[in-house]
Amino acid sequence: MEQGRQPAAARSRKVVLRAYIDRAPREDDMELVDGGDVALRVPEGAGPAVLVKHLYLSCDPYMRGRMRDFHGSYIPPFKPGSAIEGFGLCRVVDSTHPGFSAGDIVSGMTGWEDYSLITKPEQLRKIQQSDIPLSYHLGLLGMPGFTAYVGFYEICLPKKGEFVFVSAASGAVGQIVGQLAKLHGCYVVGSAGTDQKVELLKEKFGFDAAFNYKEEPDLTAALKRYFPDGIDIYFENVGGPMLDAVLLNMRMHGRIAVCGMVSQHGLTAPIGIHNLYCLVSKRIHMKGFIQSDHLHLFLRFVEDITKHYRDGKIVYVEDMTSGLENGPAAFVGLFSGKNVGKQVVCVSQD
Amino acid sequence: MEQGRQPAAARSRKVVLRAYIDRAPREDDMELVDGGDVALRVPEGAGPAVLVKHLYLSCDPYMRGRMRDFHGSYIPPFKPGSAIEGFGLCRVVDSTHPGFSAGDIVSGMTGWEDYSLITKPEQLRKIQQSDIPLSYHLGLLGMPGFTAYVGFYEICLPKKGEFVFVSAASGAVGQIVGQLAKLHGCYVVGSAGTDQKVELLKEKFGFDAAFNYKEEPDLTAALKRYFPDGIDIYFENVGGPMLDAVLLNMRMHGRIAVCGMVSQHGLTAPIGIHNLYCLVSKRIHMKGFIQSDHLHLFLRFVEDITKHYRDGKIVYVEDMTSGLENGPAAFVGLFSGKNVGKQVVCVSQD
Repeated sequence: MEQGRQPAAARSRKVVLRAYIDRAPREDDMELVDGGDVALRVPEGAGPAVLVKHLYLSCDPYMRGRMRDFHGSYIPPFKPGSAIEGFGLCRVVDSTHPGFSAGDIVSGMTGWEDYSLITKPEQLRKIQQSDIPLSYHLGLLGMPGFTAYVGFYEICLPKKGEFVFVSAASGAVGQIVGQLAKLHGCYVVGSAGTDQKVELLKEKFGFDAAFNYKEEPDLTAALKRYFPDGIDIYFENVGGPMLDAVLLNMRMHGRIAVCGMVSQHGLTAPIGIHNLYCLVSKRIHMKGFIQSDHLHLFLRFVEDITKHYRDGKIVYVEDMTSGLENGPAAFVGLFSGKNVGKQVVCVSQD
Repeated sequence: MEQGRQPAAARSRKVVLRAYIDRAPREDDMELVDGGDVALRVPEGAGPAVLVKHLYLSCDPYMRGRMRDFHGSYIPPFKPGSAIEGFGLCRVVDSTHPGFSAGDIVSGMTGWEDYSLITKPEQLRKIQQSDIPLSYHLGLLGMPGFTAYVGFYEICLPKKGEFVFVSAASGAVGQIVGQLAKLHGCYVVGSAGTDQKVELLKEKFGFDAAFNYKEEPDLTAALKRYFPDGIDIYFENVGGPMLDAVLLNMRMHGRIAVCGMVSQHGLTAPIGIHNLYCLVSKRIHMKGFIQSDHLHLFLRFVEDITKHYRDGKIVYVEDMTSGLENGPAAFVGLFSGKNVGKQVVCVSQD
């Protein structure tokens, strides 16, 4: 077992879920708990495992679904009293697994705590450090970026010149969808919830147009204004009234990639969608997807996006919150649109 | 111009739409009007046209959409005061078009009247008389049959052994979907609105199981009972609460072919669908379609279905109403499920 420069033990804190909820999460649904001193070694008899120190944690809307007592989903709920889980970027402190050594930087599903023992390290991905900011491996080069990549190319099947609409467009996924669509020669409009985000879409991400949906009393009319000839592709991040308005504005043979509504999973009263009859008259293709079904494309994704990033053709905006203790507020902020860009929590910089 | 055995003129009646509606149609929304004597010849100067006598008219749910003052659909609304239109099976009485002769039997879009002058006869399809009942060209071998064929094979992409659910299963389309699915080696369950229809599904059409949805207080639980392992394919004919219940019971990577909801087109308050978030967690593919996009498959469809029919592997049930004057009641009956099987109106037998 390799010995790092770490002390033999360190204080570890964790963010736990207090109890299941069936509404939008609040900060006090979570609690920062002192986890006591943890030995900075994989315990004897633990088998091949790694002990990691967290550098960055990712705040993603799908995590809301794990706060409900709902077991029919593709991923089980959190356990009240235990650390909540999410994608994280970590440094390996100790390893008894032949594939990992102290000092490795890895990303994968992990706990919201200072240190975690990971007993199935095969699910971790080793990160090669480069000119790309480490935290981008939770966004641009992580699950959100891959969601955008798979959703746009594999589900939306875009053609040059098509009309593309992206909701929650400045978010972790939306900002990449819009930029990929522009690179593909599409006309791209995004919606967001503040004027600042709308500016970002137009000025930083190069969307052809963007609007603040909160200032539009009639979403159907707004979309008609931005897409007088209709929408070919909708990258669906929000559900609800926006989806209904989009359905009325779709063109024939349009495609809708659905990923965002996962945040409504298990809601006691999910919002009703009334205009599905448009699927028939317009022959619309609506497809739910999850990035993890398409992992065979991950290497190509990393190559493509890295090249675009280095060529200055894709930029990424993240919203960095400092300190594990501020994680709950950062996560909760997702649901009121507080974050500008991808929400990340920096737990430690070393 | 060929002279038939027809007299030079005949009395023609027509069924007209009184005014636009935005609710389920009632009998008195239509009116039988005396059209006076019509000369049984294509008028001089009409160009290449045919004058037809109607034998059978088809009652189809999509026609409800044409009774609304809604111009955004794939097909324009009816004109109040004019004969309503639908698929019909007719005998050519006179023709100035080189492709048609008196005595030909044709099917196509036509008016609800005794005689029609059709000025674009290119849209008509000539029917070869055979051992197959003529009226079946409006059902089994017509638009409903082709809808079933295209929807099942092209949209549902079935695999042997999959679990298939069909709503409105004894209707013009559903009865064929179920039988094709059985021929394909699937497990098939259908729903219908009377015990008599449920019997028909099991005894006549060979569904593995069937249930009366009106006797199920909890559709989600009912589907769970019939599909303990979930539904791979749903042939969606009804929308509303049944679709919501199906979404909760779908399996991973399930497919939903949507054709029926077209009857909700332009409704002032279409029913809300609440469980679309299932599209994501189950990676469901939901696709609206209209048979006329797939006409390149029509000849193959006719060959396949004719063979199945002659081999006794497919049967068809139609509900025949006699007399143009009874057409409005027959059509209205579709929306309360009065018809058992494909609803046809017999206008004349010669």
